[in-house]
Amino acid sequence: MFDMLHEECGVFGVWSPERTDVAEMVYYGLYALQHRGQESCGIALSDDGVFRQHRADGLVGDVFNRAALEELGQGSIAVGHVRYSTTGGKNPNNIQPVVVCHIKGNMALCHNGNLVNANSLRSEHEMRGGIFHGTTDTESIAYTIVSERLRAPSTEEAVAQAMPRIQGAYACVLMTATKLIAFRDKNGFRPLCYGQTAEGAYVVASESCALSAVGARFIREVEPGEVLIIGADGVRSDRRHCGRAASLCLFEYIYFARPDSVIGGASVYAARKRAGMYLAKASPAKADVVIGVPDSGLDAAIGFSQESGIPYGVGFVKNRYVGRSYIAPNQRMRENAVRIKLNVIADTVRDKRVVLIDDSIVRGTTSARIVGLLREAGAREVHMRISSPPFRHPCYFGTDVDSQENLIACRLPDVEAIARYIGADSLAYLSVQDAHRLAGDEGCRFCDGCFTGQYPIPIPEEQGKNKFEQPLTRRSSK
Amino acid sequence: MFDMLHEECGVFGVWSPERTDVAEMVYYGLYALQHRGQESCGIALSDDGVFRQHRADGLVGDVFNRAALEELGQGSIAVGHVRYSTTGGKNPNNIQPVVVCHIKGNMALCHNGNLVNANSLRSEHEMRGGIFHGTTDTESIAYTIVSERLRAPSTEEAVAQAMPRIQGAYACVLMTATKLIAFRDKNGFRPLCYGQTAEGAYVVASESCALSAVGARFIREVEPGEVLIIGADGVRSDRRHCGRAASLCLFEYIYFARPDSVIGGASVYAARKRAGMYLAKASPAKADVVIGVPDSGLDAAIGFSQESGIPYGVGFVKNRYVGRSYIAPNQRMRENAVRIKLNVIADTVRDKRVVLIDDSIVRGTTSARIVGLLREAGAREVHMRISSPPFRHPCYFGTDVDSQENLIACRLPDVEAIARYIGADSLAYLSVQDAHRLAGDEGCRFCDGCFTGQYPIPIPEEQGKNKFEQPLTRRSSK
Amino acid sequence: MFDMLHEECGVFGVWSPERTDVAEMVYYGLYALQHRGQESCGIALSDDGVFRQHRADGLVGDVFNRAALEELGQGSIAVGHVRYSTTGGKNPNNIQPVVVCHIKGNMALCHNGNLVNANSLRSEHEMRGGIFHGTTDTESIAYTIVSERLRAPSTEEAVAQAMPRIQGAYACVLMTATKLIAFRDKNGFRPLCYGQTAEGAYVVASESCALSAVGARFIREVEPGEVLIIGADGVRSDRRHCGRAASLCLFEYIYFARPDSVIGGASVYAARKRAGMYLAKASPAKADVVIGVPDSGLDAAIGFSQESGIPYGVGFVKNRYVGRSYIAPNQRMRENAVRIKLNVIADTVRDKRVVLIDDSIVRGTTSARIVGLLREAGAREVHMRISSPPFRHPCYFGTDVDSQENLIACRLPDVEAIARYIGADSLAYLSVQDAHRLAGDEGCRFCDGCFTGQYPIPIPEEQGKNKFEQPLTRRSSK
Amino acid sequence: MFDMLHEECGVFGVWSPERTDVAEMVYYGLYALQHRGQESCGIALSDDGVFRQHRADGLVGDVFNRAALEELGQGSIAVGHVRYSTTGGKNPNNIQPVVVCHIKGNMALCHNGNLVNANSLRSEHEMRGGIFHGTTDTESIAYTIVSERLRAPSTEEAVAQAMPRIQGAYACVLMTATKLIAFRDKNGFRPLCYGQTAEGAYVVASESCALSAVGARFIREVEPGEVLIIGADGVRSDRRHCGRAASLCLFEYIYFARPDSVIGGASVYAARKRAGMYLAKASPAKADVVIGVPDSGLDAAIGFSQESGIPYGVGFVKNRYVGRSYIAPNQRMRENAVRIKLNVIADTVRDKRVVLIDDSIVRGTTSARIVGLLREAGAREVHMRISSPPFRHPCYFGTDVDSQENLIACRLPDVEAIARYIGADSLAYLSVQDAHRLAGDEGCRFCDGCFTGQYPIPIPEEQGKNKFEQPLTRRSSK
Repeated sequence: MFDMLHEECGVFGVWSPERTDVAEMVYYGLYALQHRGQESCGIALSDDGVFRQHRADGLVGDVFNRAALEELGQGSIAVGHVRYSTTGGKNPNNIQPVVVCHIKGNMALCHNGNLVNANSLRSEHEMRGGIFHGTTDTESIAYTIVSERLRAPSTEEAVAQAMPRIQGAYACVLMTATKLIAFRDKNGFRPLCYGQTAEGAYVVASESCALSAVGARFIREVEPGEVLIIGADGVRSDRRHCGRAASLCLFEYIYFARPDSVIGGASVYAARKRAGMYLAKASPAKADVVIGVPDSGLDAAIGFSQESGIPYGVGFVKNRYVGRSYIAPNQRMRENAVRIKLNVIADTVRDKRVVLIDDSIVRGTTSARIVGLLREAGAREVHMRISSPPFRHPCYFGTDVDSQENLIACRLPDVEAIARYIGADSLAYLSVQDAHRLAGDEGCRFCDGCFTGQYPIPIPEEQGKNKFEQPLTRRSSK
Repeated sequence: MFDMLHEECGVFGVWSPERTDVAEMVYYGLYALQHRGQESCGIALSDDGVFRQHRADGLVGDVFNRAALEELGQGSIAVGHVRYSTTGGKNPNNIQPVVVCHIKGNMALCHNGNLVNANSLRSEHEMRGGIFHGTTDTESIAYTIVSERLRAPSTEEAVAQAMPRIQGAYACVLMTATKLIAFRDKNGFRPLCYGQTAEGAYVVASESCALSAVGARFIREVEPGEVLIIGADGVRSDRRHCGRAASLCLFEYIYFARPDSVIGGASVYAARKRAGMYLAKASPAKADVVIGVPDSGLDAAIGFSQESGIPYGVGFVKNRYVGRSYIAPNQRMRENAVRIKLNVIADTVRDKRVVLIDDSIVRGTTSARIVGLLREAGAREVHMRISSPPFRHPCYFGTDVDSQENLIACRLPDVEAIARYIGADSLAYLSVQDAHRLAGDEGCRFCDGCFTGQYPIPIPEEQGKNKFEQPLTRRSSK
Repeated sequence: MFDMLHEECGVFGVWSPERTDVAEMVYYGLYALQHRGQESCGIALSDDGVFRQHRADGLVGDVFNRAALEELGQGSIAVGHVRYSTTGGKNPNNIQPVVVCHIKGNMALCHNGNLVNANSLRSEHEMRGGIFHGTTDTESIAYTIVSERLRAPSTEEAVAQAMPRIQGAYACVLMTATKLIAFRDKNGFRPLCYGQTAEGAYVVASESCALSAVGARFIREVEPGEVLIIGADGVRSDRRHCGRAASLCLFEYIYFARPDSVIGGASVYAARKRAGMYLAKASPAKADVVIGVPDSGLDAAIGFSQESGIPYGVGFVKNRYVGRSYIAPNQRMRENAVRIKLNVIADTVRDKRVVLIDDSIVRGTTSARIVGLLREAGAREVHMRISSPPFRHPCYFGTDVDSQENLIACRLPDVEAIARYIGADSLAYLSVQDAHRLAGDEGCRFCDGCFTGQYPIPIPEEQGKNKFEQPLTRRSSK
Repeated sequence: MFDMLHEECGVFGVWSPERTDVAEMVYYGLYALQHRGQESCGIALSDDGVFRQHRADGLVGDVFNRAALEELGQGSIAVGHVRYSTTGGKNPNNIQPVVVCHIKGNMALCHNGNLVNANSLRSEHEMRGGIFHGTTDTESIAYTIVSERLRAPSTEEAVAQAMPRIQGAYACVLMTATKLIAFRDKNGFRPLCYGQTAEGAYVVASESCALSAVGARFIREVEPGEVLIIGADGVRSDRRHCGRAASLCLFEYIYFARPDSVIGGASVYAARKRAGMYLAKASPAKADVVIGVPDSGLDAAIGFSQESGIPYGVGFVKNRYVGRSYIAPNQRMRENAVRIKLNVIADTVRDKRVVLIDDSIVRGTTSARIVGLLREAGAREVHMRISSPPFRHPCYFGTDVDSQENLIACRLPDVEAIARYIGADSLAYLSVQDAHRLAGDEGCRFCDGCFTGQYPIPIPEEQGKNKFEQPLTRRSSK
């Protein structure tokens, strides 16, 4: 019902100097990363080299009950994954971690991101007799590392040698019998950081909020291009692929990440407030109250309020109980559907001129409904401000943007037309320039491909995720 | 882990002029009332006099899947209930609606509140050979109405005649084969309102947010002492027991109700903001930022900020995925447990003097942990402000307050001692006088018994809910 | 798909001199009685007067997992029930045990059978203000006992005084805080027996096979009209209502009971073999092999074989995995449906003259299909023999016979016509006289109402179970 | 509790000339094969080249509900598998069908049996960079076929070329986008047959009872060494590996297969009866009744009775409801545990000399308990006869025999000692010579390795299944 963005995944890993409840630590870490993927999840554990795993469709709380955690048992290393995907959901082999055996041992791999050369990597392995169980590009990463491992003296060396062959976005944690290896593509499209607990365990996670969840102190982010090796000898870093300017996904700040995370050196909450401030400066509005669309519009609304001096108010209540088991209303009640999930606090907006902040507009239908709810509740004017630039281009690095024919910023000629479509008295987006200032002035560099069509790395012919679904549908020649 | 208050229930009813999806309407209504009770829920429906029901332990989304709704089918009247209770959970007969057959037909009853003469009512019926299937006082209400129905010419008349015998708090919806009857005790301890959909169906609910959820227009609240009869002849009102000054539970504003509801003529959101404003006037603090404990402290924090001029900030992220299936951390990880549910946004509080608003302090342990989190994140000072007066007395009207030996306001001599216990630099509560002004100056009258020990109606010897559990444990004399 | 008979229930109770795993004993007892009812089940337990219960739809193995048994915990008395019913399944209050509180304490009641004056009993209690939660006649038994208990000095005296008011079939176990009471209607329509374990616990059960399941030694059957009281003083018997000639249901031997049970002094297995022997004498056939329809036709086939000298063979394999979760084939595959559940062993019947024994013919459609399977597998002749007389009349005592317009013995003029309908070369039923000799010559007396239309007690105007469904559908007068 | 044998699997496949309910056909086929594996099951389907699959732990009825079948949808080819295994159960990738993508398309493989060179095959593929997701030898079969497919012009040719490299027992069905391929190792250790439905669909199954379940006419068995190719051109056969004398597993007749199946040209039911007849001739006993241990001892008991003239009787009732969800009794009730599953019909054995037939003795503990039950029920003498020779050697071809230190025939010096151990008055086994005559005189040839230690093919050093578990536990070298 709500048109929105989706990201693919969150990853988490623990290495402990002694046998302990590492599976439980991953369980709590995945709870903290659940916002990055709600479709399936899994944990794999190494107990002195014996691997155990549990993976299934569903939220962390559904997939892992006490019995499942007890069956995983204790160990010294564990990795976990939460996943969102629009396709391939019914192939149980697509659920991560990908756990495989190869000539030199076992390996469990968790991946956030999206490759641009997944198909050619896959073909390369298939041509040597390789077989694939699922349709994800993660399996291609695993194959490439294993093929390097045949010659490389260690798994970490195999990873480092495989990285130039793996193109696109990948923030990964990899578990062997004795080591936890974290690595991140040279552009650093997706975040990855690590820390340490008071007991001395090392923790790697997509976001720092997951370090907090297990009581780990944030040490630093894994650098773009870095391979971090955690084992009995401590933490080592292989930086042979580092050095290129980062191109972190801007939507990590705008929408994906949790506001209590620190990414690219900047607080996500502060970045969102900054987006609101930039909007207040660049696109002011005469109004009585500033409200945000929960949850990701709220912080930007606070920033807009503080910059503009217009009071901040709570405009909506979001129903926290509407989840996977919710049955969507039938045709006759469809009209009211949005109200079950999101209800206006009429007292906030009645007879008021309202500034409404949201993080993005995808198709425009949800925005139109929300503006309608405000007018119905008595808002006199609705000035919509969007804390990101307009979407116009596909993402090849792990964000699931709608197809261009559905994107309102592609369909309509200009901002005024969009404002009319959604019924707002005025509409403004964050500029691309301001978007690059979200992390503050000393912040890192970003990918703005979905706004500008300019991508930090070349996009091969065989673009995009659609092709990943092909292998299972391709017909046998004979 | 979090010490907190609980209320018992939410009720919802629909009467439609024609056979339609009334069970589905109740389903959406219960979703909107889920915050009032997460333990069990149920729906009963009348399809031209044939009753069908479905009730179970669990959230609305767990108990009602598509098959359950389809088995309920269509009808013209339906009632539903969400329930919280600390006891009797395993007796399936305690799950409401209570559906019974009697000499004149069938009846389904949903009740929010708590009687003070439940035991004597129960004994009265038992002495005439009555048998009870559960341990709730709701069954006593049903018995009393049925006993009046033997002589009364209609169910509504039986309700009106039963009301003087039923003492305490009750906001009820009752379904017969052809009518929906709503009634509320003469003090109006618990809220109840009604509205109408565009299609002409009447809807009764504990809170107005549930009317919005099904697209019904709010008409008015059911008055304290009123019996509202909805049937083929339209809506009738029996006001013979009306007229007494209301004594609505103050905690409906402070904690229980959803901010988008209107209760006692006042917006719950506005009341919470007002609590913050009163606190800012009565107990100001020199600080750099005002934050609230999610969710019920947030609105008061906005009010405090606006009254004091100190900027409002978001201090915490609450993990929305931690629910019923969450496995609590073991001893070793207990320390970090609070962080999984509630994490600080360090950027908001680092090196700042912080005003922290929460709705109440029960045992004080959670407040101490939260203050600790802020200090650990770098807050320089923490000034805690509570948007309610201190709890010191039991509630007999449906709020599940902790026992007095656990209440910190009973255990410690004064506010300073409590401040020390929780580690705050200063602490202040809302005054009882200000609490009575929460709904604005022209607002309704309230019960403040849990703060003052002064109750609006006499509390019989056989007080409280504990005795309700006795019948099932009492031994047979022989 | 298979037309068949159904009985209503099995009951089980344990009284232990000390606190122990009585719930677990009931659990194993119900497993042994599962064939008497597969729709729902429940256990109630008294732990020093505190009652706990667990009841739900489903098989014993589905309803009771380890957690449910642990929550019931230990106690000194427990009762349980398995239930079959065609109606009222969705009313959770119909699941037994019926656990109620009354003025003198608590009581849990389990009932096998069917009353003939349930409606008038119900009206009697309703006219005094009584309310009913379910639609079973068991609740009327409970009400009647409780109404006597107001004056009676003990529950057992209340039971004895209530029995003349309760007319029809009832074999019951009743638990109070300190006693286990078993009682059986004066006609003894349904079986009930008791025994003792090596540890000294007393066990009451519908069938002796359930005593074996918990290692209890069979003592004797509860007599028709007897009230058996088990408590701290040992076992007492109240025989004031005994003395009338029994009228045990013949179908307990023919179909309902497990062959390893002893009922009315006779082995059920022996009774079934005897049925086959009587058939072989009265209705011989020239044949090469005798086979039975699993499961209840097998024992009679062995008897027929031994009496006739025709070799016994196994004609069918029944698929043991087809259960509640089985999805019935769609229209296109319907033809083969019977084969999934029941497949012919062609080797047994190919080119043979076959005697086929089944326990009964209800509508005739299943028999026709089975005869068809045999012919398809190459049987040259099929001589069907039925180990019961033809059904022609309703049962008012707890057996769920099809309506008369569906019974083939009512629809078709004579046995030859039925033989033609099912495609058999010959057909014969057990005679009513032989049916009375099933338990051997010194056996007890039986009810043959469903064969003869002659019932051992008068059937009131308000006959049968259909009326029990009325209360929930009756409209309110106003 | 019952010591018993286990086999690994059942396989089933359908090829239909048109798009239809092939998944539903497999579902019913797997129901008929459920006795061959109760641990996990799965179905994969080709809908015009698009593969869909559903696999999980559990029985067919648990894993496949209506929603799962609907999501599989219609197609023209489908394969399915039921699996038993003692190890690796928690690795979801071990559940079959194994569905993989390779350079030439997709493939789904189902396998019954056990390889003797699984480890060397696995190493061979790993040394070329291959990765394994599970620990079954089936994945090695898939890899070997795929590696041949790189050069072979078709999948069937790849299968034929792979077969000499795959050593041991395998009866397989394999689905490509357009073909169903069935193949069986050259010794034919495990059964495989095919048939055709009236609508023209071809069906392949482990046992003929599964053909009956979907209404398919039995055509013939797939020959040892044969590759059967079913596609748009009809059915083709590649017999290049045929010709060797078969060595079918004798336990298919004795225990594994359903009595209504025809294997190796002989009825399984007839083979079991024959076992009883051979025993009666070779090891007669003076007795009053012959009984069998359900289920697999029953048919042999009938044969013994007919050969000896001693009457056949039913000695036990097996509780059909004891399944996966059954909670085993605690220590205190352990004594009675066997009675819950298996109860004696005392009437059959009291004061009698009893011949007791069972299919095998593994550890002897269960036999001892059963003999004890009979004596307790009053049997005067118990003469045990076993319808197979004594187990003394491991099986490498898919039967899960206990370890030699547990086998009573290895632990005790002679049959008399075993008879004493189990408490029987006499004991005799089927001779190996008679075992070879189970299928009648013109029957096929058999493997008797578990009785004689003489295996039809050489067993490599790296024997047995235990090594399959190693890859996941092997440590990484670095």
